[in-house]
Amino acid sequence: MQSMVTLINVFAVSPGKEEEFIRLWNETAHLMRQKPGFMDTKLHRSLNPGAQFAFINVAHWESQEAWQQAIDSNPGLQNWWQQIALIAEANPALYKVEVQY
Amino acid sequence: MQSMVTLINVFAVSPGKEEEFIRLWNETAHLMRQKPGFMDTKLHRSLNPGAQFAFINVAHWESQEAWQQAIDSNPGLQNWWQQIALIAEANPALYKVEVQY
Repeated sequence: MQSMVTLINVFAVSPGKEEEFIRLWNETAHLMRQKPGFMDTKLHRSLNPGAQFAFINVAHWESQEAWQQAIDSNPGLQNWWQQIALIAEANPALYKVEVQY
Repeated sequence: MQSMVTLINVFAVSPGKEEEFIRLWNETAHLMRQKPGFMDTKLHRSLNPGAQFAFINVAHWESQEAWQQAIDSNPGLQNWWQQIALIAEANPALYKVEVQY
């Protein structure tokens, strides 16, 4: 039995590196969205440039296994993470919806 | 001209305090959802108990002004924040959707 998961990645981005971050994020989003089990993704940008977390990505996958398989079958991802790490601190984790209104 | 905003609140919660956190979160969610301009909210819980951010709340409001007004017209909120602060570190900020697929 599989169930949908939410990937949330909270990014603290070095000031002035926002546009480079968006470019890098788009590169990988284009790859990941072609993988089986991808549902949707939204990159949120803070309205306040001074916010601790300038960008937060919220994505839905059909299952934890599909997400893991998408990562494992994406050999460019490690290089991408190295580039991101130069300008941002990432905090990716999988979530379920506990309560909603 | 008003436009929808996304409130994302990233919570680091003290281990063992997860259920108390959910109870407190629900108390205020019940109040906030009755305010004009509230659209929806989802409290996400990490699948990995060791994740840095155990809970992430993603809410939509019709405008930044409506959200601000909801806070200003909610006198119990300050007391709630004081209770939350005993068990969690909160990082609330407003976001717009920069990219989506």
